[in-house]
Amino acid sequence: MALSDLKPVERNAAGVEIVLGVLKQRLGDRFSTNRSLCEQHAHTTTYIPMQTPDGVAFPDTAEDVQDIVRICGTYRVPVIAFGAGTSLEGHVNAPGGGVAIDTSRMKRVLAVNADDLDCTVEAGLTREELNQHLRDTGLFFPIDPGANATLGGMAATRASGTNAVRYGTMKDNVLSLTAVMADGSIVTTGRRARKSSAGYDLTRLLIGSEGTLGIIVSLTLKLHGIPQAISGGVCPFLSVEQACRAVIATIQMGIPVARIELVNALQMRAMINYSKLDYPEGPCLFLEFHGSDAAVAEQAESFGDIAAEYGGGPFLWTSVAEERSRLWKARHDAYWASMELRPGARALSTDVCVPISRLAECIAETESDIAETGLIAPIVGHVGDGNFHVLALMDAADHSEVARVEAFVARLNARALRMDGTCTGEHGVGQGKIGFLEQENGRGVHFMRLIKQALDPQGILNPGKILPD
Amino acid sequence: MALSDLKPVERNAAGVEIVLGVLKQRLGDRFSTNRSLCEQHAHTTTYIPMQTPDGVAFPDTAEDVQDIVRICGTYRVPVIAFGAGTSLEGHVNAPGGGVAIDTSRMKRVLAVNADDLDCTVEAGLTREELNQHLRDTGLFFPIDPGANATLGGMAATRASGTNAVRYGTMKDNVLSLTAVMADGSIVTTGRRARKSSAGYDLTRLLIGSEGTLGIIVSLTLKLHGIPQAISGGVCPFLSVEQACRAVIATIQMGIPVARIELVNALQMRAMINYSKLDYPEGPCLFLEFHGSDAAVAEQAESFGDIAAEYGGGPFLWTSVAEERSRLWKARHDAYWASMELRPGARALSTDVCVPISRLAECIAETESDIAETGLIAPIVGHVGDGNFHVLALMDAADHSEVARVEAFVARLNARALRMDGTCTGEHGVGQGKIGFLEQENGRGVHFMRLIKQALDPQGILNPGKILPD
Repeated sequence: MALSDLKPVERNAAGVEIVLGVLKQRLGDRFSTNRSLCEQHAHTTTYIPMQTPDGVAFPDTAEDVQDIVRICGTYRVPVIAFGAGTSLEGHVNAPGGGVAIDTSRMKRVLAVNADDLDCTVEAGLTREELNQHLRDTGLFFPIDPGANATLGGMAATRASGTNAVRYGTMKDNVLSLTAVMADGSIVTTGRRARKSSAGYDLTRLLIGSEGTLGIIVSLTLKLHGIPQAISGGVCPFLSVEQACRAVIATIQMGIPVARIELVNALQMRAMINYSKLDYPEGPCLFLEFHGSDAAVAEQAESFGDIAAEYGGGPFLWTSVAEERSRLWKARHDAYWASMELRPGARALSTDVCVPISRLAECIAETESDIAETGLIAPIVGHVGDGNFHVLALMDAADHSEVARVEAFVARLNARALRMDGTCTGEHGVGQGKIGFLEQENGRGVHFMRLIKQALDPQGILNPGKILPD
Repeated sequence: MALSDLKPVERNAAGVEIVLGVLKQRLGDRFSTNRSLCEQHAHTTTYIPMQTPDGVAFPDTAEDVQDIVRICGTYRVPVIAFGAGTSLEGHVNAPGGGVAIDTSRMKRVLAVNADDLDCTVEAGLTREELNQHLRDTGLFFPIDPGANATLGGMAATRASGTNAVRYGTMKDNVLSLTAVMADGSIVTTGRRARKSSAGYDLTRLLIGSEGTLGIIVSLTLKLHGIPQAISGGVCPFLSVEQACRAVIATIQMGIPVARIELVNALQMRAMINYSKLDYPEGPCLFLEFHGSDAAVAEQAESFGDIAAEYGGGPFLWTSVAEERSRLWKARHDAYWASMELRPGARALSTDVCVPISRLAECIAETESDIAETGLIAPIVGHVGDGNFHVLALMDAADHSEVARVEAFVARLNARALRMDGTCTGEHGVGQGKIGFLEQENGRGVHFMRLIKQALDPQGILNPGKILPD
């Protein structure tokens, strides 16, 4: 299914008209219908066409959010939660118009409980702001999806990133959250206990629900001690296959890698050109280890041995921060390096995730497909989880090219599903993956719909996302 | 709220009558209404009064379960999933009668994917059977709730246990599960990918739902590599307070303890008497470390230093398996040791979980409460998570004593909630904790009810559990 096949969300023009007036009166300067501001709140970082909301609200508190949701609920007008706008599958688009709730004024750190390794923050705080706030505590929040996303947005999309292999995803690092539900009531889903068996897991139900079941206003997050030492480095391989074999052996040996990232040959070439590096052109693994001085050295050495067994190496690694940054710099700039492969193009960033035993095969088939389709589309992967991204560069104004890329994405998803994987490891469904949810979840989608209907009977929360009509 | 305040579940005698006949015909020998067999399936390991089902079915396949649920659904007769019957809060009681679904014939290991560190098993397999099956693979399934529970039951109750501090709970170790829903349809909630952002998290919704939203028939589980080395030992402390401080420091330093168990003075005395040990009488921590030879030695030494800082020690530890077993033996026999404190008594085993910064205070207040109430009630705790158990020994026939213990449990739960903890860290709600769910989850209970109504509109799945009427 292509994006253009998505059913339109019906527009309630009369309701919107009333709501805009009421919200202006209620929020004053904190509500705007300015056209360019509305467009900024529909802006997606991919090629997905913009669908703007009718107004943007800037709540200060959970009670503001509650009022906005109640007002919109009264007139059946959509509300779309907006964090930093860095999501990739059209999550913040407003296909039926309505009101974007921008959480950027809700950035308070409500509590840091250092002894318990947790903190409670408002949803609009970004992960970098949180880590900046924590800088003197010896603690950090590890989840790193690349972009400086808001923590509310990261929870809503079940984000993860490079170090999920060690620290898990948002699902594993949220102890509890507070959300405004469709009926305007405020729910706190749990306590600060590290674990609980008290009833249905509303925390995990809201995580990944993309603003369709409730609007997250604050979260209690697990924190981690900043490791005593970090080592890291880069290891070239002769093939993706061998690199993947080394990854499997590493995971299976129980080496607690903090990051293990695969970069394919095209991506590596782009990075070498962009960052002027003296690396071999070919697939590479980038690694990082966290622990005591002795542990990170031991882990790096163990990995070096494994890499050599699979024909990889030399594994250049170091515990010195500056040198590590130099080695990793290319990986951090991968996105920008890719964009130079086709200046002026739009990027479609898509992701799938497969069992790691199938990863090499999945990437190899995907590379062949890219070549046959004639795309410029480098690959990077959080391969410890079996998760990889393809960045297809295209001319978004050329409909036949867009159709060709969409067909490629459909084949990629079908391939991942055939290998017992998922159509999205970390980007979420939004609009871009709606067409694949039924292939992946079958009858499960029916029960997702029942839950959606039970919790948001009017369908006002981020309509047109996740669930196929 | 005491157990006796629970609203009775209405009994559909006419429906039951029909269903018993239909199931006998459909399942033959694999269905029984034998009185003592029915009683075995209501047997709870605590003092909670028995409520027997009208019949017990022994399905061989998911399709058998599907048929049973459909037949029961047609006549609005309750179905109660039954694993090993080791749960502690009355989960398998049948307050409205109905049919127990005993999964003991569903023990197949459907797949072991060693490269992916996962396996798929039927719900009736126990955790010890699984680890026995895995013995030649170098892999193991870590979750250990003590009892040799079935994996389906462990998922249904969101079980954890001693090594959750390192390996997480069932919520963290189930990749996907297959369940028969109330309408008789079969849902598989996910794929074998290590992570996914594809729609609502039905996996986590079913985990901990105690058979009230669906009946788990098979599960895909994460496996872990058997550590190269294990070290462990015992460390006495002068007070629970100091032991808890040492735990906090250990967790905060990022020492990846695999187990860190607190035993209070009374429990320690019971264990010393029972196991004829030459340990000091007073609070102790039992620890275990998993990793490389070097890592487990380093971790044990680091912990020894921390313990000394908090007045604890000497920390006796070893990497030799036999010696470690000897040191840990007392902990493994804690339950039997406790029972000797009051021969002939019934045990009420209850659990709460608080942020670890509040653990010392929570246990100290609980010890005072036990003393003031005049109970014999030792305490053990999975303190890396802030989770602890009180085993209250009582004469279950003495109503005033039962009432006194129930009042104590109510105060314990209120105390945990006041400290931002939960009324159950790992035992679940069942019948025993129903009265505390609203105190803990507030408005959240309303949304749990909406979900229950949406997914099981007739209320046939394990009625009278989790949700207060």
